[in-house]
Amino acid sequence: MPQTPQVVIFGASGDLTRRKLVPALARIAARQAGGDFSVVGVSRRPKTDEDFRRELRAFLPEEQRADFDRLAPRLHYLAGDVSDAEALAALSDRLDALPGGRGAGRLFYLSLKPELFAVAAVSLAEAGLLVMAEGEREAWRRVVIEKPFGTDLPSARRLSRDLHTVLREEQIYRIDHYLGKETVQNLLGFRFHNAIFEPLWNRHHVELVQVTVAEEIGVEPGRGAYYDATGALRDMLQNHMLQVLALVGMEPPPSLDPEAIRNQKVELLRALRFPDPSTPHEFGVRARYAAGVAGGKPVPGYREEEGVAPGSGTETYVALRAEIANWRWNGVPFLLRHGKRLPRRFTEVQVHFRTPPLQLFDRPAGVSEADLRRLQRDGSLCEIRPNVLTLAVQPREAIRLSFGVKRPGPSMSMAPAALEFDYREHFGEAPPDAYERLLLDAILGDQTLFLRADEIEASWRFADEVLAAWRGPEAPPLLEYPAGSWGPAESEALFRGCEGRWSEGR
Amino acid sequence: MPQTPQVVIFGASGDLTRRKLVPALARIAARQAGGDFSVVGVSRRPKTDEDFRRELRAFLPEEQRADFDRLAPRLHYLAGDVSDAEALAALSDRLDALPGGRGAGRLFYLSLKPELFAVAAVSLAEAGLLVMAEGEREAWRRVVIEKPFGTDLPSARRLSRDLHTVLREEQIYRIDHYLGKETVQNLLGFRFHNAIFEPLWNRHHVELVQVTVAEEIGVEPGRGAYYDATGALRDMLQNHMLQVLALVGMEPPPSLDPEAIRNQKVELLRALRFPDPSTPHEFGVRARYAAGVAGGKPVPGYREEEGVAPGSGTETYVALRAEIANWRWNGVPFLLRHGKRLPRRFTEVQVHFRTPPLQLFDRPAGVSEADLRRLQRDGSLCEIRPNVLTLAVQPREAIRLSFGVKRPGPSMSMAPAALEFDYREHFGEAPPDAYERLLLDAILGDQTLFLRADEIEASWRFADEVLAAWRGPEAPPLLEYPAGSWGPAESEALFRGCEGRWSEGR
Repeated sequence: MPQTPQVVIFGASGDLTRRKLVPALARIAARQAGGDFSVVGVSRRPKTDEDFRRELRAFLPEEQRADFDRLAPRLHYLAGDVSDAEALAALSDRLDALPGGRGAGRLFYLSLKPELFAVAAVSLAEAGLLVMAEGEREAWRRVVIEKPFGTDLPSARRLSRDLHTVLREEQIYRIDHYLGKETVQNLLGFRFHNAIFEPLWNRHHVELVQVTVAEEIGVEPGRGAYYDATGALRDMLQNHMLQVLALVGMEPPPSLDPEAIRNQKVELLRALRFPDPSTPHEFGVRARYAAGVAGGKPVPGYREEEGVAPGSGTETYVALRAEIANWRWNGVPFLLRHGKRLPRRFTEVQVHFRTPPLQLFDRPAGVSEADLRRLQRDGSLCEIRPNVLTLAVQPREAIRLSFGVKRPGPSMSMAPAALEFDYREHFGEAPPDAYERLLLDAILGDQTLFLRADEIEASWRFADEVLAAWRGPEAPPLLEYPAGSWGPAESEALFRGCEGRWSEGR
Repeated sequence: MPQTPQVVIFGASGDLTRRKLVPALARIAARQAGGDFSVVGVSRRPKTDEDFRRELRAFLPEEQRADFDRLAPRLHYLAGDVSDAEALAALSDRLDALPGGRGAGRLFYLSLKPELFAVAAVSLAEAGLLVMAEGEREAWRRVVIEKPFGTDLPSARRLSRDLHTVLREEQIYRIDHYLGKETVQNLLGFRFHNAIFEPLWNRHHVELVQVTVAEEIGVEPGRGAYYDATGALRDMLQNHMLQVLALVGMEPPPSLDPEAIRNQKVELLRALRFPDPSTPHEFGVRARYAAGVAGGKPVPGYREEEGVAPGSGTETYVALRAEIANWRWNGVPFLLRHGKRLPRRFTEVQVHFRTPPLQLFDRPAGVSEADLRRLQRDGSLCEIRPNVLTLAVQPREAIRLSFGVKRPGPSMSMAPAALEFDYREHFGEAPPDAYERLLLDAILGDQTLFLRADEIEASWRFADEVLAAWRGPEAPPLLEYPAGSWGPAESEALFRGCEGRWSEGR
């Protein structure tokens, strides 16, 4: 156990620090987890420790202040820039003087622009801050960064290579805050603690899997230019959604070791395919929102948003029909969808199970056995599909298994029903915030919920395949959908025959 | 569709008629199901139609009277005995005069002592009442009887043979009122409408199945002599419990045809084994209740009950560890338990699923991998068993699937949780009474929920095997348990190693 770790936040005046990192650290301190850690905020603007504490406290909602007040005496501030050698020398002195000194474990959180990640790491190395104190096993040095990790496979590889010049992979903690969510972590427990799901979790019993991250908001103020250079596929699908997909689809790991889990995730991601890049319109839809209505109020279209180029060709909605070319999943469509300005915010995974081999119940009246088989084969009469497992990630964290149950009464007809479980109802409290879990794990040195370089590369390989098809001669058109709608009608065509349709949450 | 069926109840002054049959017929009439049927009650005591109607009405609770009043004009009464040729001739005239006359379908409900079933059927035949009117397809003739169907295999065979001298099998409707319960019928729908359970429903994924019918009551007033000649195994296990077991364990039928379903049930019952009749104490426990407490009040022991022989050796509790010797179930224990004077009334089926092949989560601290495997092999450290499917039949009709879910917080530890479904909550009303369903099916000519002769024989073959072992040189002792307890402690030993224990309902 680390006794007196030191947490350094570069970009300490930023929004993430006050909205997420400091509240998370305050709760970790309140739970007496992570040892007696100190925190040093680093940012350009000069201010005293007292200023820093007062500003952070003023920002917090009332109910978080008690926790904050316990953390406050351990919060410090240093004015400076990560590329400034003098400032880093001052930081080094400051850290040496704090509890634990040079023998303490040190966590450097780079809440900086992504183009500064490698620069900052090299500067830290040059300032001697990444060197472990000799003979001190607890004097670890770790760096935390958050997406984007590159904008395509070559730039992601470049970033990894640059970081690896001064850091070993086990010192790098790449955050994907989706992995900090309880229900995302529960995917592992749900699948591998319960022996009843694994036998069904394959091409023999699963007809399709759909993953949705729907947002009600449009482009956030101040993020227009960044978003316009990124788009929905890179901003959400390539990272968060593929991480969720990896946990849904991976093989069972031999243990819960971080490397054992990450090995299986990367294998899954490597097997992910965009089925036919020569006909991308058959396997994907891209679109952007036009003016419409959100929350009952009229809202502008994407191209009217501040910071977005007038001639922008960036998508705010992406829907893909992907495949996983391995023994378990080959032939099962994985339908992935993300969009902004949809009617409702929700993230969920749905596993649709196959129908029984014989439809005994609720057979349509007046249709002969032979006709029934023919109609079901050609997709003009769909069998009843009673079994869908829904893993709701946000805003509600819940599990729902739908099934058919006999309708009371004299006929053998079946009614839809569901077995349900709600995280908050069951445990009586909201699950902890993702950053609390992730910062604590980084302090404790558990990399399970952080991304390894090869996972990121495998994700980009897939995303680049789609992006290349979108730039090619068969590129699908960039469609439009009104803000507040469920996206372009064309995306329903990604479901074939009787496969169903996109979930609308709830 | 039958237009004007005629229902004749022999034993019309009995308790079953007023408590179950007439209320069920009144509800069928209220739902306008089963056609415009007439009812004729037959019993020894002379009374007029008006007397009969008035007596029945007076017995009914207020909320059932509106339905009854609609049925009342169609209710008739005839004094007579089923073995009296003159009375049957009068009945024949009476039926001919009612709507439909000789061309009507006729259902004869023999609410009589079981030793009269064959006698009554022969008398009906001799009176010409079982002869269909010529050329009238709707002029069917059916007989309904209710258990016991014999007291062992030879007597059951004799009864079938005697009935078959005057009735074809498709005219005989043998009631097991358990099959009229919605949740019992739902076993078929649950298993064969939902494709997700069938892949788990076998020896690879099921560790054991337990079926409990627990009663809080002791021997009912007036039934002491009958019960003392019967016992728990014959009174409940041989019939109701094996019927439930057959629906839980049977192979999928090719259709919902009555014969298709009954064929599979009888196959299952034929494969049922009492594992080793030479050591019956290892696979079964028999016991009777001693004085104790029920519903907060002291109650006498079984041998003090009225009608019970002072030297009685009859069991009021039976627990068996049976097996099903077929491809699907071989090696999976089926634990069956029934007792009177237990703490609570409930009927349920529990399917316990196997543990995952590797215990990734919640590994005991400080136990090495090698030790863990050894301890789990020898049964001294049980793995966690998160998955049990409970099908509750009464008093609550519900489905519950227990599973493990990640406990919120930084550790990867799992908490028990459950997906739940309650019939009444979902459908907003109590399911219809079993007799309503069964009488309607008998009128409509659907034999699905009625027992076929070969099913009864297969059930007796199993029961006789157990009874023979109980009479043999290795007969297990008749144990005692206090009224209001969960039965003798010895019955827990029917679970081996880490298999768990008897359910206590809820």
